[in-house]
Amino acid sequence: MFQPVYLDHNATTPLDPAVRAAMLPWLDGLCGNASSRHEYGRRARQAIDEARQKLAAALGAHPTEVVFTSGGSEANNLFVKGAAAGMKPGLIAVSAIEHPCVLKPAAQLARQGWTLQEIAVDGAGRVKTDAYAELLLSRPALVSVMLANNETGVIQDVAALATAARSTGAWFHSDVVQAFGKLPVDFRLLNAAGVHAVTVSAHKINGPKGAAALVLDKRVELQPLVAGGGHERGLRSGTENVPAIVGFGVAAELAAQRVAELPQQMQILKNRLESGLTAIGARIFAVDAARLPNTSYFAFPNIDGETLVGKLDREGFAVASGAACSSANPEPSHVLRAMGVAPEIARGAVRVSLGTGNSETDIEQFINALQATVGRLQGLTAIAV
Amino acid sequence: MFQPVYLDHNATTPLDPAVRAAMLPWLDGLCGNASSRHEYGRRARQAIDEARQKLAAALGAHPTEVVFTSGGSEANNLFVKGAAAGMKPGLIAVSAIEHPCVLKPAAQLARQGWTLQEIAVDGAGRVKTDAYAELLLSRPALVSVMLANNETGVIQDVAALATAARSTGAWFHSDVVQAFGKLPVDFRLLNAAGVHAVTVSAHKINGPKGAAALVLDKRVELQPLVAGGGHERGLRSGTENVPAIVGFGVAAELAAQRVAELPQQMQILKNRLESGLTAIGARIFAVDAARLPNTSYFAFPNIDGETLVGKLDREGFAVASGAACSSANPEPSHVLRAMGVAPEIARGAVRVSLGTGNSETDIEQFINALQATVGRLQGLTAIAV
Repeated sequence: MFQPVYLDHNATTPLDPAVRAAMLPWLDGLCGNASSRHEYGRRARQAIDEARQKLAAALGAHPTEVVFTSGGSEANNLFVKGAAAGMKPGLIAVSAIEHPCVLKPAAQLARQGWTLQEIAVDGAGRVKTDAYAELLLSRPALVSVMLANNETGVIQDVAALATAARSTGAWFHSDVVQAFGKLPVDFRLLNAAGVHAVTVSAHKINGPKGAAALVLDKRVELQPLVAGGGHERGLRSGTENVPAIVGFGVAAELAAQRVAELPQQMQILKNRLESGLTAIGARIFAVDAARLPNTSYFAFPNIDGETLVGKLDREGFAVASGAACSSANPEPSHVLRAMGVAPEIARGAVRVSLGTGNSETDIEQFINALQATVGRLQGLTAIAV
Repeated sequence: MFQPVYLDHNATTPLDPAVRAAMLPWLDGLCGNASSRHEYGRRARQAIDEARQKLAAALGAHPTEVVFTSGGSEANNLFVKGAAAGMKPGLIAVSAIEHPCVLKPAAQLARQGWTLQEIAVDGAGRVKTDAYAELLLSRPALVSVMLANNETGVIQDVAALATAARSTGAWFHSDVVQAFGKLPVDFRLLNAAGVHAVTVSAHKINGPKGAAALVLDKRVELQPLVAGGGHERGLRSGTENVPAIVGFGVAAELAAQRVAELPQQMQILKNRLESGLTAIGARIFAVDAARLPNTSYFAFPNIDGETLVGKLDREGFAVASGAACSSANPEPSHVLRAMGVAPEIARGAVRVSLGTGNSETDIEQFINALQATVGRLQGLTAIAV
C-alpha cells in the first residue's frame, strides 16, 4: 500500500505500538460493561480506573478531576454548554482563534441570550492583552483561550490570562489538545493560576480516536451534555469505551515521559523545515510568536493552498491546507483572518505538523518536492498571465 | 484467566471475530483523520462511507439518514435535546420504562419549561394504549418509546404507537438499541408508520464500544449536542472514531444476516432457562408479554437481587441485577416500579440475557448453580427468621 510521508500530526497521529498493545486485550473476545457487577464488569472498571490515574498523573491532576468523553470536540462543548446551563445568560469571551468546537457552542449560547465576545489576537496570533484587559472589565462569566493553536501552533500565556481573569469570577477554560505532549502541561499549576478546566484528546498524542477528557476543577458546576446512567460523576453518561480509554491512559503516560526530549527533537526538524521554506520563498505565519515545536504554517504568493496540498499528496506528502476538521469549508482560515492576514494570502495557507515518526530525510524530501511543485505552479501562473 | 459464563448480553456483547478483524488494520500504524484531504484522510473517509452504507442497509435506511455518535446514550440525548432545541417548550411524552438516557434528558427539558409526561405501562410492561391515546389528545411535540426494554425484554408495538401519534404532528423516536439484531428492524417500514428516528448501538450487537447512530428522517431539524467542525451533516462534530465505526458497519451487516436464525436459537435456550427458573420457584417478570428472545428477568421471594448476582458471580456466572448502567443505584428498578411490582419483589430482580456464544450446557449449569445458591440463601433466611 502506498504510504505517503505523514506531516499532518495536528490532524491526528499514528497509534503508538505500546498503546495498541495495551488496547488489544480489550478488543479480544469480551470486554465487559464497566458498570456490571460481575467479573467482566470489575475488570473493565479497574482498567478505566488505571487509565484515569495515568492521565491524571501525566497532567498533574487528581483522578477525580478527569471526566472522560468521546473526543476533544465533545469535551469543549461540555465545558462551554455545561457550565453555561447552570448560569443566567451573561458574557462569554473566547479567543477569535479557538477551534470551531469552542466557537460554535459559544455561538449557540449567543442565540440563547448570552453575549459572545471574541478576544482579538495580533498579527502573530497572540491574544492582545490590552483588548483582553478591557474585555475583562465587562466581567465575563466564561472565558476560553486555547494553549496552542492547531493551525499556527502559536502558544498563549494561558496562566497569565487566567490570573488576569480571576477578579471577574469567570470560569476559565483552556483547550490544551494541541499542546499536550508537545509542551509540559501541568493542571495543578494552571489551576493555581486560575484555569478551571482543560481539554485533552488521545488521538493527538499517539493514542486512539474515541477518548478524550475534560479535566475539571470540581468547584465548576456542569450540566451534562449526555445524561443517563450517571457515569463520570453524572457529567457524562454512556457505556465507557474501555479499549479507547485504556489506550488513552498509556498514550498520556508516554506523552508525559517524552515531553522532556520530544520538543527539542521536533524543534531541530522544524528549524530545518523553516530554513528550507524561507529559502524557497514561503511566508511563514506567526513566525515571531512562541509556537509549538512541531508546527509550521505558511503560504506562497499566488499559489492556492488546496491546490498545493493536492499536488503534494500526489508526490507522496500528507500535509494540511488548514484545520482538517473544517477543510470542507472553502473560506480562508478564521485564524488567519483574526491575525489580519489578507484573504488572498490566507487562501494559500499550508500546514506541516511533525510527529515522532518524522526524520530529517522526510524534511529534505519534502522541501525538494515542495520547491519543484511550487516552481511548476508558479510557471503555470506565469503562463496564464 | 478465570472466564465466567457470560449471561449479560443486554449490558454489552463480546466483539465478533470478524468485527475485530475489520477493525485491526485501522489500529495498526496510522489511521488518518477522515477530514484530511490527503491519502490517509481519503482512506479513512472511504471506510466511514462503507460502514455507513452497511449500517443503512442492515436497517433498511438510506446512508444519508445515519448520524454516527459515540454511543446510544449520546444518540438518545441528541434526539431528545436536539429536537427540543429548535422548538418552543411543549409536551414531551416518553414511556415510563425508557432507559435513563431518554428519561434524564427529558427531565432536563422539564426544567427548561417543557412538560414531561411519562406514558404508563401495564403489569406486563406494555404501554397502556388507552392512557397513551388520552395523552395524545394533549398534542405532544416529542414522543419516545423504546422498541424493546433492556431489563424485561418487553417489545412494544412501536409502529402502531407512532401511527397513532401522527395526527399530533409529534416527532416520534424509538430506542431500538436492544431490539436491533434480536428482532428484524426496518427503518423504512417504521418511518412509513410514523417513526422519525431510531437509536442503534454497536456494542450491543457484537460490535465495539464507541460507535452508535441516530437514524433520522431528514425532515426532523436537530440542533447538535456537539457543535464544531460540522461532521455528520453538522449534527455531530468531532473527529470520527474510524476503527469503531468500521467495526459497527461489519457488526450491523452480521446482525442483519443473523436475525433470520438467531432469534429462534435464542428462544429455544430461553425456553429451557425459563422452564428451569419456574421449576425452582422464580417469578418471571412480564412473562405474558411479547419479549426479546434472549432476555429473562426474574426474582425469588425474599432473596436480594444484588446478593444473588454476587453469589452467582463467585460461582462463575455473569448476570445482572438490573440495568448495568444504573447498578450503582440501590433503588429498585424504575421499570418494575412502572409495572406496579412491589418494591420488596423488585429488589430481588435478576436479569439473564443470552447471546450468540451461549449453549445449552451454559443454561443447565446456570440453573444448577442458581438452584443451589437460592437454596443456601433461603436456608440462611429461614435460620435468620
